Amino acid sequence: MEIKKFLNKNNNCDDVVVVQGLGFVGAVMSLIVSNSTKKNFAVIGVDRKENLEIINNINSGIFPIKSSDPKIEEYFQNSINKGNFLATHEASAYSYASVIIVDINLDVQKNPDDKGNLISYNVDLNPFKNAIKTIGQNCREDALILVETTVPPGTCIKVIKPIIEDELRKRELPINKIKIGHSYERVMPGPEYINSIKNYYRVYSGIDENSAIETEKFLKTIISTEEYPLTRLVNTNATEMAKVLENSYRAMNIAFAVEWSRYAEEAGVNLYEIVDAIRMRPTHSNLMYPGIGVGGYCLTKDPLLASWAKINHFHSKNNLEQSEKGVKINDKMPHYAFEFMKKVFALDSLANKKILLLGVSYRSDVGDTRYSPVEPFYLNCINENATVDTHDPYVKYWEEINIKVSQDLNEKLGMIWDIIVFSAAHSEYKNSKVISKICKMSNVKILDTLGILEQKDIIKLNKKNKVKVLGRGDI
Amino acid sequence: MEIKKFLNKNNNCDDVVVVQGLGFVGAVMSLIVSNSTKKNFAVIGVDRKENLEIINNINSGIFPIKSSDPKIEEYFQNSINKGNFLATHEASAYSYASVIIVDINLDVQKNPDDKGNLISYNVDLNPFKNAIKTIGQNCREDALILVETTVPPGTCIKVIKPIIEDELRKRELPINKIKIGHSYERVMPGPEYINSIKNYYRVYSGIDENSAIETEKFLKTIISTEEYPLTRLVNTNATEMAKVLENSYRAMNIAFAVEWSRYAEEAGVNLYEIVDAIRMRPTHSNLMYPGIGVGGYCLTKDPLLASWAKINHFHSKNNLEQSEKGVKINDKMPHYAFEFMKKVFALDSLANKKILLLGVSYRSDVGDTRYSPVEPFYLNCINENATVDTHDPYVKYWEEINIKVSQDLNEKLGMIWDIIVFSAAHSEYKNSKVISKICKMSNVKILDTLGILEQKDIIKLNKKNKVKVLGRGDI
Repeated sequence: MEIKKFLNKNNNCDDVVVVQGLGFVGAVMSLIVSNSTKKNFAVIGVDRKENLEIINNINSGIFPIKSSDPKIEEYFQNSINKGNFLATHEASAYSYASVIIVDINLDVQKNPDDKGNLISYNVDLNPFKNAIKTIGQNCREDALILVETTVPPGTCIKVIKPIIEDELRKRELPINKIKIGHSYERVMPGPEYINSIKNYYRVYSGIDENSAIETEKFLKTIISTEEYPLTRLVNTNATEMAKVLENSYRAMNIAFAVEWSRYAEEAGVNLYEIVDAIRMRPTHSNLMYPGIGVGGYCLTKDPLLASWAKINHFHSKNNLEQSEKGVKINDKMPHYAFEFMKKVFALDSLANKKILLLGVSYRSDVGDTRYSPVEPFYLNCINENATVDTHDPYVKYWEEINIKVSQDLNEKLGMIWDIIVFSAAHSEYKNSKVISKICKMSNVKILDTLGILEQKDIIKLNKKNKVKVLGRGDI
Repeated sequence: MEIKKFLNKNNNCDDVVVVQGLGFVGAVMSLIVSNSTKKNFAVIGVDRKENLEIINNINSGIFPIKSSDPKIEEYFQNSINKGNFLATHEASAYSYASVIIVDINLDVQKNPDDKGNLISYNVDLNPFKNAIKTIGQNCREDALILVETTVPPGTCIKVIKPIIEDELRKRELPINKIKIGHSYERVMPGPEYINSIKNYYRVYSGIDENSAIETEKFLKTIISTEEYPLTRLVNTNATEMAKVLENSYRAMNIAFAVEWSRYAEEAGVNLYEIVDAIRMRPTHSNLMYPGIGVGGYCLTKDPLLASWAKINHFHSKNNLEQSEKGVKINDKMPHYAFEFMKKVFALDSLANKKILLLGVSYRSDVGDTRYSPVEPFYLNCINENATVDTHDPYVKYWEEINIKVSQDLNEKLGMIWDIIVFSAAHSEYKNSKVISKICKMSNVKILDTLGILEQKDIIKLNKKNKVKVLGRGDI
């Protein structure tokens, strides 16, 4: 029906590519494949029935992700004009694909206490396994299954390959023609969304020589590999490990800044200034600044995926202690920021305090609230019966909390607050007019969790004991 | 006498600079000051009587540090020709100086068990305090004391300033003219020794405005600040913290690689290959490779200095747990390498085994054995009654162990060994002829602790089960 009609219309295409999962990666990956200039692809995005809204939106010309990258809309319009991008929930789509790209979630179930301490965590592979099973029940025997999902190391060999082979056997098909490749994305939602996929380095591998070769061939049709050459690793364990390693590295480097932020507060120095000075060394240019916390889908879980697999896939006796510790330290950051606010402003209780949070997304200039550190900070305030209002230029509705978020900064700054918190480093907040307006407000305390205020503002405000900055002691 | 004669000879100089401490930093710092093109300095290097050999060597034209940087000898010859560099043990030297540069050691006393576990540590400030006292007893009341030693944060304000003021008071001199500045070096012994001081970024501060200004003025006369602009931090706590922070960062990033090296060994992947692939990301370009351990004077102690000061100078309740952990993990690396060697080659005992260590210094292409990780590795072998021989192109005598080190690689490779260990990544060992010679040797096991062998060599050798690499599982 719908799929067949779509394929008929695209019957002169070179290949049919199916993307499994239409989230932050899959939806944009679909655009990139459908906009390939090297091959004519027909692209079918498959998501679950529960996500019918996303599917319907795509098919009626509304892209499900709002982005500051203008290329997203440009690519989507181009896909519409070409008529080579369809969204569906029907698993039969897989049967037409020469390439199936796996872009679904693989979640970690974290169990923290109310202070943010990670008590335990678990990795439930079942939803992921079921999704792979659906592919095995429908795919062509010679398809390339390209896994982009961040998976626990060992998953392609120990989980995906057996499932696919099992399903092919049930369908009485040979198992020696299937190809399974792994190549992880390094997507950065934000103004460089498309570039972070199309124009960036990639690592890839296959479960065997043929899988690796076919993976390489396909990646070359969608990524600017002349400028950003591909790197082949020796097996899928290696690429799977590379992904979680690079995110663990990032998470640990943030955790490092946490410990030194506390030190700076104690020793009366400004850690932002120190980090700026050290970052001049090329070997130290990625040193992290203090902050309210770590959010997003990757850094909050990937070290745990890695650690889980070390024990469950490779039978190690030890977990990744240091990388797990990074996650644990980071998880507590928003709770520390909350306690810091109460301590430095000598507030025994927040009851009836009017608090304005400037920014709710987890990253500057991005409208992504997944695992935002502002969430526990907000909830802590609410739990103490504060009246909390929120502003974010990129977020209209905060899904995780189920509240509307204001986009009207002028209106919010015209109201009366006890505390204003810089909780995301959006460009709008760095505007000197905005800062000067906030600085002039009377009877308000200002908590800067991200080093947005400049030295001169802080010195002026400090005289009135109005401002405190995370990672910056009283100087 | 000697000093007076020297000063008479240099009576047309702009300023007398005294450098306290003629070690790896002070000796080279003296050269740089005496070779300044912006001012004519007369430089007196002061060291303790115990180091009379160093003093006499300098005064008779022999520079105490051998280096692969040809500029060292060039600068020293130039100093001799100018006649503006004298070494002495006499404290009276300080009385002539407008600038006194402090380049002495400040050590941490580490107490490890025989597996490398750090049981406890201590920072004894007394030797450092005594050295500062000597300055206070002799210096001009208006001198600039420029501290380059890596000190526990808080030291300039809480330790140095009171000592100097105390001594000035005893001498019935005013205390309001003395200047104390702090600016740490980022010296890299090796081929860029001089450049790592003269042509590199510097951070500085003073205990007051005047101290900071005078420190800046002086640094501008010896460092290429047009190309490498200075960064002033707000107080000496900040610069002191910056130094130990940047070294803690490095130490922790090495510790990160340790945990993942074990993972790679378990999961049958090659961590070197993974690190190479990830390093293509500019944000991850300083990711560390696996290795035998961390050595040298800085990374093995600076995180502990920082942690010690957090509690002792700033009365914090918590130490720097994560940074201390970095040191602890790194300290155990050589012990792990030793156990790894026994395990992978299935050796219950090393008794009577003939082992050749290629490289004893702590860093590639440098002849510095201070806290070399090869030391505990060597001692472990000796303790199990192995016969251990050593080679290092940069080390003739291994001071810490009290043994001669061979410089004749051909001779050593002509002998019969049970195990050859790549224990330092000197260029000489990466030579393809050397590697091919080692690969062809029969009945020898090869342990590569630093990823010197290439994939093709390893594949060939692995067939004979001859080679094992730290951070690389069997693939």
